[in-house]
Amino acid sequence: MENKMDNQTVTMAHGAGGKQTSELIDKVFAAHFANPDLTADDAAVLTPPVGKMAVSTDGFIVSPAFFPGGNIGKLSICGTVNDLACMGAKPLYLTCAFVIEEGFPMEKLEEIAAAMEKTAKEAGVRIVSGDTKVAGKGQVDGVFITTTGMGQIEDGVKVGGELAQPGDAIIVTGDVGRHGCTILLAREDFGIEADVTSDCAPLWHTVEEVINATHDLHVIRDATRGGVGTVLYEIAGQSNVGIRLNAEKVPVAPEVKGVCGMLGLEPLYLACEGRMVIMAPKAEAEKIVEVLHKCPYSQNAAIIGEVTAEQPGKVVMTTEIGTQALLPQPGGELLPRIC
Amino acid sequence: MENKMDNQTVTMAHGAGGKQTSELIDKVFAAHFANPDLTADDAAVLTPPVGKMAVSTDGFIVSPAFFPGGNIGKLSICGTVNDLACMGAKPLYLTCAFVIEEGFPMEKLEEIAAAMEKTAKEAGVRIVSGDTKVAGKGQVDGVFITTTGMGQIEDGVKVGGELAQPGDAIIVTGDVGRHGCTILLAREDFGIEADVTSDCAPLWHTVEEVINATHDLHVIRDATRGGVGTVLYEIAGQSNVGIRLNAEKVPVAPEVKGVCGMLGLEPLYLACEGRMVIMAPKAEAEKIVEVLHKCPYSQNAAIIGEVTAEQPGKVVMTTEIGTQALLPQPGGELLPRIC
Repeated sequence: MENKMDNQTVTMAHGAGGKQTSELIDKVFAAHFANPDLTADDAAVLTPPVGKMAVSTDGFIVSPAFFPGGNIGKLSICGTVNDLACMGAKPLYLTCAFVIEEGFPMEKLEEIAAAMEKTAKEAGVRIVSGDTKVAGKGQVDGVFITTTGMGQIEDGVKVGGELAQPGDAIIVTGDVGRHGCTILLAREDFGIEADVTSDCAPLWHTVEEVINATHDLHVIRDATRGGVGTVLYEIAGQSNVGIRLNAEKVPVAPEVKGVCGMLGLEPLYLACEGRMVIMAPKAEAEKIVEVLHKCPYSQNAAIIGEVTAEQPGKVVMTTEIGTQALLPQPGGELLPRIC
Repeated sequence: MENKMDNQTVTMAHGAGGKQTSELIDKVFAAHFANPDLTADDAAVLTPPVGKMAVSTDGFIVSPAFFPGGNIGKLSICGTVNDLACMGAKPLYLTCAFVIEEGFPMEKLEEIAAAMEKTAKEAGVRIVSGDTKVAGKGQVDGVFITTTGMGQIEDGVKVGGELAQPGDAIIVTGDVGRHGCTILLAREDFGIEADVTSDCAPLWHTVEEVINATHDLHVIRDATRGGVGTVLYEIAGQSNVGIRLNAEKVPVAPEVKGVCGMLGLEPLYLACEGRMVIMAPKAEAEKIVEVLHKCPYSQNAAIIGEVTAEQPGKVVMTTEIGTQALLPQPGGELLPRIC
């Protein structure tokens, strides 16, 4: 960008609604987010989606804001785009609201905005409206971003947590627990060094490819907070079905496995930000996995289990040595903040 | 509500995405926000607006979160509803994302949710989707709320900050500066006691009445951060017109005037959260004011000036003693945080 801000850091004046606010919006946000639907007014005027509209909102307060594989800006786009994608909705529009701590480095804010621009472009979503507040030092930790997305639900697609059926295959779209593991290590609470990067990625095009291959899908869910384990328990409850999980089929990167071993953590409960659980009739499963293997963020996709009529509400795990055990129920504070 | 939370305060577990998060959502948020469009999934599935859709987002970090005339919950609905209303859009759907500090009193959170419920009902808007994050003690000050609203732009209505025309009358819908003054005093920075309450109010029905009376409207803008003065300068710039302001016609409550006198503040630069500036052809002005006087939040509406071709970009004030002076330009940190 030609037109850099004069200030090295964000000041209270940048949030006061006057001249400096306009300057920040013009030079940092509008410069990155420019598109024909972006408004300078208080509300954007848009052509609504055709058919049904999906709407999702998510607040992002991850600490640290920069981590291997991404930053809070990239995450704030992926999180909301993926929530829409998991409803079978093509992301169209996105709003973003920033709360920035006084003194936050302007250069870091630019880097966040640039990541948002890049990720939004990849996901095919337009940022249409925003808001900027500056909080006094200590009133907020760095920067928080809330994004809200609007998407168009693809014709003939109906997925939901309550639609899993006995006989469905359970697919995970990649190796689990990367994001949670990355944030854990980035906090340096443990003094462990391992080369783990977040799986944070926008997944609409992945879902689109799957939908193009088959509409015979029951559940698509991204495994964010609480990880794959929490998602499985949620769906078991919502659909009143049992879940049989083949533990040795769950893809886990060796470095994630290593960290989990040292810390006594279960990778199934570590957050992902670019992984989905898909449930679909067994007859469709191989085709879906084949499609996933061709997409950039799901090359390790695998069938990890099946939906059963027995033990509704429970997730039963067949371990590597062949024994069966209940996957422990999620609950309590699983992990440090990861989104 | 029958089903109170066991916890007296919000804990990290309430934000971890597991069982406690579900409990908080069910017992506090869903209990208050219940409506047929509210989703428990990651995204709501909605019927889109007909015609053009207005979309607006706003983050609310007001401190203190409770103040005479409202709280951050009421404010978070009013702010976004009013941004839609000022585009001539009927608010349909709203999302809300909470960031809550660990240890925040559950009772206060309930009070906030109840205020949101009441205000959303009054405004005729449905809360359709939400998100809850809990931040560690000191990572956030109390509670932050980001709301995003979607509305349907009324047929034949076209308003915008760039549409003011010489000859337009300038109307303010009520006495100015109440909200900013209330927050100032609630902070007890000054040791002044005065009986001021915030003007915080949802204004869609007010706009609706005005639209029903006439479609010949050029600008509707709510005077939030930066107050009426900032809005006038913004519009003067966007429309490249001059603004002649009749200072003695600007309604200011005596208690607000008193506080401003003591502190050396200009009420025109104090925030409002329930006041709008309307610009429309002079021939329509009396009729608009008449309609406003019948609405609950605009009984003190008044014509306070006119748009001119001279001195484009400037706001010229005729003072009470008849002299003319430029209204000082807005800029810098005008006030403590007020939204």
